[in-house]
Amino acid sequence: MNAEFLHQDRLFPADPQVRSVARALYEGVADLPIVSPHGHTDPSWFANDTPFSDPASLFLTPDHYVLRMLRSAGINYDRLGVVRRGGKPLVEGREAWRLFCANWHLFAGTPSQLWVEHSLAMFFGISVPLSAETADTVYDTIDAGLKTPALRPMAVLDRAKVEVIATTEFALDTLEHHKKLKEKGLIGRIRTTYRPDDVTDPDVPGFAANLARLGELTDEETSTWAGLIRAHAVRRAFFREYGATASDHGVPSALTVDLAEYEKQALLDKALRGTITSAEAEQFRGQMMTEMAGLAAEDGMVMQIHAGVQRNLDPALLAGYGPNLGADIPCRADYVNGLRPLLARFGSAENFRLILFTLDESTYARELAPLAGYWPSVIIGPPWWFHDSPNGIRRYLDTMHETAGFYNLAGFNDDTRALLSIPARHDVWRREVCRFLALLVSEHRVSRDTAEVLAAHLSYDAAKRAYNLP
Amino acid sequence: MNAEFLHQDRLFPADPQVRSVARALYEGVADLPIVSPHGHTDPSWFANDTPFSDPASLFLTPDHYVLRMLRSAGINYDRLGVVRRGGKPLVEGREAWRLFCANWHLFAGTPSQLWVEHSLAMFFGISVPLSAETADTVYDTIDAGLKTPALRPMAVLDRAKVEVIATTEFALDTLEHHKKLKEKGLIGRIRTTYRPDDVTDPDVPGFAANLARLGELTDEETSTWAGLIRAHAVRRAFFREYGATASDHGVPSALTVDLAEYEKQALLDKALRGTITSAEAEQFRGQMMTEMAGLAAEDGMVMQIHAGVQRNLDPALLAGYGPNLGADIPCRADYVNGLRPLLARFGSAENFRLILFTLDESTYARELAPLAGYWPSVIIGPPWWFHDSPNGIRRYLDTMHETAGFYNLAGFNDDTRALLSIPARHDVWRREVCRFLALLVSEHRVSRDTAEVLAAHLSYDAAKRAYNLP
Amino acid sequence: MNAEFLHQDRLFPADPQVRSVARALYEGVADLPIVSPHGHTDPSWFANDTPFSDPASLFLTPDHYVLRMLRSAGINYDRLGVVRRGGKPLVEGREAWRLFCANWHLFAGTPSQLWVEHSLAMFFGISVPLSAETADTVYDTIDAGLKTPALRPMAVLDRAKVEVIATTEFALDTLEHHKKLKEKGLIGRIRTTYRPDDVTDPDVPGFAANLARLGELTDEETSTWAGLIRAHAVRRAFFREYGATASDHGVPSALTVDLAEYEKQALLDKALRGTITSAEAEQFRGQMMTEMAGLAAEDGMVMQIHAGVQRNLDPALLAGYGPNLGADIPCRADYVNGLRPLLARFGSAENFRLILFTLDESTYARELAPLAGYWPSVIIGPPWWFHDSPNGIRRYLDTMHETAGFYNLAGFNDDTRALLSIPARHDVWRREVCRFLALLVSEHRVSRDTAEVLAAHLSYDAAKRAYNLP
Repeated sequence: MNAEFLHQDRLFPADPQVRSVARALYEGVADLPIVSPHGHTDPSWFANDTPFSDPASLFLTPDHYVLRMLRSAGINYDRLGVVRRGGKPLVEGREAWRLFCANWHLFAGTPSQLWVEHSLAMFFGISVPLSAETADTVYDTIDAGLKTPALRPMAVLDRAKVEVIATTEFALDTLEHHKKLKEKGLIGRIRTTYRPDDVTDPDVPGFAANLARLGELTDEETSTWAGLIRAHAVRRAFFREYGATASDHGVPSALTVDLAEYEKQALLDKALRGTITSAEAEQFRGQMMTEMAGLAAEDGMVMQIHAGVQRNLDPALLAGYGPNLGADIPCRADYVNGLRPLLARFGSAENFRLILFTLDESTYARELAPLAGYWPSVIIGPPWWFHDSPNGIRRYLDTMHETAGFYNLAGFNDDTRALLSIPARHDVWRREVCRFLALLVSEHRVSRDTAEVLAAHLSYDAAKRAYNLP
Repeated sequence: MNAEFLHQDRLFPADPQVRSVARALYEGVADLPIVSPHGHTDPSWFANDTPFSDPASLFLTPDHYVLRMLRSAGINYDRLGVVRRGGKPLVEGREAWRLFCANWHLFAGTPSQLWVEHSLAMFFGISVPLSAETADTVYDTIDAGLKTPALRPMAVLDRAKVEVIATTEFALDTLEHHKKLKEKGLIGRIRTTYRPDDVTDPDVPGFAANLARLGELTDEETSTWAGLIRAHAVRRAFFREYGATASDHGVPSALTVDLAEYEKQALLDKALRGTITSAEAEQFRGQMMTEMAGLAAEDGMVMQIHAGVQRNLDPALLAGYGPNLGADIPCRADYVNGLRPLLARFGSAENFRLILFTLDESTYARELAPLAGYWPSVIIGPPWWFHDSPNGIRRYLDTMHETAGFYNLAGFNDDTRALLSIPARHDVWRREVCRFLALLVSEHRVSRDTAEVLAAHLSYDAAKRAYNLP
Repeated sequence: MNAEFLHQDRLFPADPQVRSVARALYEGVADLPIVSPHGHTDPSWFANDTPFSDPASLFLTPDHYVLRMLRSAGINYDRLGVVRRGGKPLVEGREAWRLFCANWHLFAGTPSQLWVEHSLAMFFGISVPLSAETADTVYDTIDAGLKTPALRPMAVLDRAKVEVIATTEFALDTLEHHKKLKEKGLIGRIRTTYRPDDVTDPDVPGFAANLARLGELTDEETSTWAGLIRAHAVRRAFFREYGATASDHGVPSALTVDLAEYEKQALLDKALRGTITSAEAEQFRGQMMTEMAGLAAEDGMVMQIHAGVQRNLDPALLAGYGPNLGADIPCRADYVNGLRPLLARFGSAENFRLILFTLDESTYARELAPLAGYWPSVIIGPPWWFHDSPNGIRRYLDTMHETAGFYNLAGFNDDTRALLSIPARHDVWRREVCRFLALLVSEHRVSRDTAEVLAAHLSYDAAKRAYNLP
């Protein structure tokens, strides 16, 4: 075994004394169960518990972190086995895998390297770095492993000590897989999340039809604003039957508004007629955020806002291959002015909890920590997407904790569809938390005892509390 | 005594060699007198020198850092003894204090922890962490201490080695307490600061009446622009009689403008009639900044701008309890375009000095350091408010010194109304400065001798120079 | 020799173990040749190879970093020997030099200190810090050195192991010096760069005349849009004859647009008539960026965009002394929305490469790394100007590499007109790269072998690859 491959002290500080504190803190949390309250795994995996098909379609084609890096080096998506809209795979899985391995040097120092190597080691016993030379052996090892019961989805959850995991479904999803999970008694360990972007964003293709469908599903008149909101309430209750404790909202900006009834109806009318302007659509989404907060304050579901990304910046990619393939880029966000109307209404409401996520790190110290350090409802989600990385976590903790404290943080969530990487991602978070706390201990800013409490809190309890998980 | 409680090496780097350099540098500056050129202590304390009343009203209810954190954890202000507008306290001080202590874990790693523990140790000999268990003992110890002469405000200044401290008064303040201080021969050690927001911001309630009052106080016609500016000149001279060497300006943005005379008068007319729009009010404030710079260039008072905070974001809090209770959140600021008109006029004026403060750290390296590194008038104030913290100081020094140098920094000011925390705050700054310089020494970027000079400069001399203090 | 002066371990981490890794990595790259693919040295130096005149005009008056810092301390440019427009020097070089040396403490910890001390040591054997006391001796030593053949420009290139260096010329430059260099067989080692701001920015004084001149030089009709673009194509080919492999574009913002033909012509017509508004000029520049990308995709020249600086913020300085003397200040930039039209057209074009530079560090992790980590054409230039400093490089590597990887970075370029500082600047970069990699190695995030490969890549190969240098 390569001594450097997944070194037991990886990510810990170099200073021997601080490292030993970090290591000791980590030993106290390394084996805690995983709480994964927000993510994008496929519920059918758990409902059907069938084996995964092959290495490339497990590790390569669904991982937009990996795909985009390879593409940035000039490697065409066709050659990586990404299938064109209406097309067929142009290469075999093994061929794409070889290309991936031959370009593994591109990932030096990236979180993808950590995640992939940890997954390979943990689930397949692989301890050699990927390369052109090792590509075939590694492929064969994975392929063989996938055929064993130990790699079935539910076995993976067990091996990873996943205590609870939430998937994410759109409002119109009929939750077929979750129904099956309920029959199997798995709701509770596996939960859905209410993600109603399909019926809150007028820019979504087929929006009017979506609202009509929502009306059918809920027996509400969704062409009136009040009916539409009632339909949401009904649908949220339906999702709660399948374990949902939270809603999630993907919005381009953090804008919220608090309009008069007739203004809301006018926006809805335009959205249904398809005559809504871009600025009005932004208002529509902003009003919807305020409405969702109102519903959350009533039904107690936790509200998550993931704001600040420009989607599909490459029109050729979208037309040729589809969304979620790397052409989404963060943009600047304004939480202070954006959330002002929503928080003025519901910021201190007793049962309301709002978890904020950002891709604009400049808001950590300037906006998010001060908001979380005042409003009882607001807590801050972990570093998201591009910032879910060792250095990203360092910057997050560095700029967040002095104003927000540690108890206004939501712990970790992996936000991934890559099932096998879940333990790796939580491990990176736990190591970084212990690293950070070890530095505080070494600078005599918190006691060793307090650090132990905080390490466990941030590794496990915080996520359960944040998402109202029993 | 708890060995970890206020450890003598707190905040210093873990590396033994760097730590020893930091410690040695710190020993050279730890006992320097305190220069506190900007803050919000109450001049009546020093004028009357009467004892403080009780622990809660000293440490808890006036400290918006502490209040907001407790509130963010769901603890209602009523239960903390914050009095509603027109109301009476709903809990006794001791009860609120117990609640505070029982939630002390919320402050782990925050600057509040450092400040409170330092204050308790220094002034009351307390060396146990706050907790539900210690709450009563600590309360009694403080309470007893407050009845002794050693805790009278002037004795506190002496024990803290405060060489000079500036308070902050609005333009219409009649400086009654400072008059008393003058009779006692204390002006010079205690000084006022000219903070004319009440007569420069048309959005202040009662603005027209304020201008009329300013006219009375100065015998100037404040309904004309020229008269209004003369009134400021007169009032600034009045403040200088009570030691003022500086003005201070709290503005939502750093916008300045340089308008024609007739435009200024038109803005003033609208402000007096109460018909000024929000955008025009912004212009009014921006023009006022340029006027204040012009007066400063004439009378030699140092101009401070504290820009970039949205005030009173929680309407319920403002209505129920009032301002300055935690619902103020920073926002993005633009100093480069904002200050352009002011600096084009007065940036190189011989006697002009402008000290800039920000809550938007992204401007440190991008805007503030380059501005300070060019304009002879511009220097940069220390990290402000949410950023007055160990990590905040690290980020400030990290991003500021390479472009601005150390001699374009204004040293430290504590900006606080919490008298007993003043030595703690200066101590954190001095420790962090020594920490930062020790790292530079260890990386052979400045010599040990230079570091000693810089440590003393940033701990003491810089503030005196920045504020023209004798 | 002062042991601290240019200490051999300068900039390396204090921790002994990490430092030894950094030192070992550095030893592997310290002596690699210098590739300087973007800068502002004067081609006449190399064409004529005549001695530099005197210390002050070599080290002081052309260095805006040094000038601006001295000015910020209240030292008038007249006293530093900066000549007023149409004026004569008011002080002698030696006098200005003494003033500079007497204020050397202002530069403690700045990159200027590193650059100047390295240059003095390397080229003149000076190993004492500058000060009032040493000013004359140092002046005399430099002065004597400048008279020797070893300080001739080409000898300097040899001593500094400069393998290739690019100058920067405007589109209307007739490249007289490069013609001479071609005769001497020096094109290849010395190259020009196409910087067409004089004919792409309608806000440039004399813009219409510039376009007319471009028409003459290229035999194209530059009053039509198509003709103007053809003229660029012709001119780019001319620059390529003198070694140009890249174009460079200085723009206030990263805005690009992709307009219809008739819109482009309308903008051009207005620009030629001098009736173009400020907003239209921004559109003009934005369209020009897209056109330049199109030409680059055809002719294979690498496109550089240096965006986000407000120029000449001090009107008195501009009127009295001219541009490039320190009154240029960065501003916020938006690459995601700004570059969207250009990238949608050419972002995946096969031969296109776009190197982005910023002065807004908040875009590193939020915008630039994600853009580089998706688009095959986009790579990120090194920290620019105010951020070309030890801490600036640390922040750049910290926020860039996890999303962009190391292979989407363009290596280093010194971007300077200060010839003697070139080795110093590359040395700082190499030290910082090795420092950063040593930390990754010590945290077991990359192997020692990988770190060695990356150190060499970032010190040498990356720049050659980025700029298509043979």
